[in-house]
Amino acid sequence: MINRIPSMKLAERVREGHLRAIARLITRVESGGDAEVREALAELYKATGNAHVVGITGVPGAGKSTLVTQLVHEYRASGRKVGVVAIDPSSPYSGGAILGDRIRMGDLVSDPGVFIRSMATRGTLGGLARPALDAVDLLDAGGFDVVLIETVGVGQDEVDIVRAAHTTVVVNAPGLGDDIQAIKAGVLEIADVHVVSKADRPDANKTIQELKAMLMMSLEPGEGIWRVPVVPTSSEKHSGFKELMAAIDRHAEHLEKSGEITQRRHQIALTRVVKVAEEIVRDNFARDSRSQTEELLKKVTQRELDPHGAAVTLLKAMKETIHEAH
Amino acid sequence: MINRIPSMKLAERVREGHLRAIARLITRVESGGDAEVREALAELYKATGNAHVVGITGVPGAGKSTLVTQLVHEYRASGRKVGVVAIDPSSPYSGGAILGDRIRMGDLVSDPGVFIRSMATRGTLGGLARPALDAVDLLDAGGFDVVLIETVGVGQDEVDIVRAAHTTVVVNAPGLGDDIQAIKAGVLEIADVHVVSKADRPDANKTIQELKAMLMMSLEPGEGIWRVPVVPTSSEKHSGFKELMAAIDRHAEHLEKSGEITQRRHQIALTRVVKVAEEIVRDNFARDSRSQTEELLKKVTQRELDPHGAAVTLLKAMKETIHEAH
Repeated sequence: MINRIPSMKLAERVREGHLRAIARLITRVESGGDAEVREALAELYKATGNAHVVGITGVPGAGKSTLVTQLVHEYRASGRKVGVVAIDPSSPYSGGAILGDRIRMGDLVSDPGVFIRSMATRGTLGGLARPALDAVDLLDAGGFDVVLIETVGVGQDEVDIVRAAHTTVVVNAPGLGDDIQAIKAGVLEIADVHVVSKADRPDANKTIQELKAMLMMSLEPGEGIWRVPVVPTSSEKHSGFKELMAAIDRHAEHLEKSGEITQRRHQIALTRVVKVAEEIVRDNFARDSRSQTEELLKKVTQRELDPHGAAVTLLKAMKETIHEAH
Repeated sequence: MINRIPSMKLAERVREGHLRAIARLITRVESGGDAEVREALAELYKATGNAHVVGITGVPGAGKSTLVTQLVHEYRASGRKVGVVAIDPSSPYSGGAILGDRIRMGDLVSDPGVFIRSMATRGTLGGLARPALDAVDLLDAGGFDVVLIETVGVGQDEVDIVRAAHTTVVVNAPGLGDDIQAIKAGVLEIADVHVVSKADRPDANKTIQELKAMLMMSLEPGEGIWRVPVVPTSSEKHSGFKELMAAIDRHAEHLEKSGEITQRRHQIALTRVVKVAEEIVRDNFARDSRSQTEELLKKVTQRELDPHGAAVTLLKAMKETIHEAH
């Protein structure tokens, strides 16, 4: 590329909060990231740890994007800079993220205290978590007070993304199937705050009561334990978003006061390191056209070797290549 | 355990198609699987490769479970043995899978030509794909002609599971949100057969037309290329399931005739090996309480080291331990 701004130079501008520099560096991260990009990320990582990271998850149709938009407005009204990383499944036709919902964000687009980015899936063998969490780092290092990660809350990768947040908000909508969607998505136990969206609808109260009943069942006795609140919101009536922001703030306070923040940080570090390690392993296998990999896969196809045996052999062989590649 | 049947003994019974042996060995796989279980799996793997594996995916509420039940009936009526591996998100309260939908299967439970198993998520750092695909192997080795894998179709792990199938069926329901759900779930491009369930509903035709229009857009010219069909089904009217089975059979035939089956098998082998490798990496990090891992995570928490640097260091250290552990 001609006149490509060096990634380390972009990193400096990211530190100063330049939105275009953040956007550009995220694009480089998304497209794989060479050694220079990784160096820039490592440098920026030192400047992270100040933002409060909020994972917002829920099944498709739960109204996450609308809620995120409203929440961004609340954070701005409270004087805070807020970044959004939205994980949208990719369309094979557009080759990118579906941005429809973003259009509703309207006036936020021109606000320098707001950064919104939709990230697409990375294709066949790539996970979403690593580039998404790198983007969170960039916003953190760029001086954003709050970073919201919005994901469709089903699947291991998605669960890992919310595990890398300080506060996890699970969005439930009334009437989206018979069961509480958080159970279907397997994310009930990771919620720090529950939202029931579309609370103006007549069946919302049933969902609220069911959620509260389930939360009661899991209630551990004791002092100083976080009680997961259920916050009703309605974008129709513009209600509940201030309360949601307050609930997230209370949870942030609780983490600090109780000392739970230490465990949470440990968990986040573990998740991130594992995700990177997984990606290195995937990349290694996928890119690797060496005869050994192909030979082993052929053996697996022909039932001469089982997948476990092949994986162990390939992991051992990877040893020699890790150093040069990463 | 006292009088525990050796896993290799169970494997022999699996080969003879004993349902209880299959169930027991799956339980051992689910609970982690020791060296003996892995040995049994490696032995059984040699006997796999005969079943046609069908991935069935779609967002929650699309009606997958009902469809699977109906499809099982069709396969039985055609004289084939059919196994089902259903991936259900785990509830923190039941500690297992939600089996509600299975109850509707009724009479299938006592049929020796049918095996149905719901598998739960494996918790914090474990993926679903490995144990689920091991279960598919057991059914394949046990002489089942067809194995259906049912998953909630969102997220990397889910996509990987369907990538390990010969034929992928994506289930869409009318009126579940504004967009085609397959796009939201990021699985549009991996469908070999599309289903529009609840086709008796008045809005079903709109969904069918939208899907067909999208498929037209992606149509590649040429002879001998698979044209993804859109099959309407209705459990209300008991219609479409025979047509769905026929479409899956046609796709199986197409794979053989076109020679695409070779690529597909290569893809399946790659997916499986990568999934196992990932699990080994995760297990290694999660179980590992060695001071090095903790030390590195602490450095990541304190911003002295970035996640990528820590991952590379840990992957290198893992090499020495792989041999003993696996």
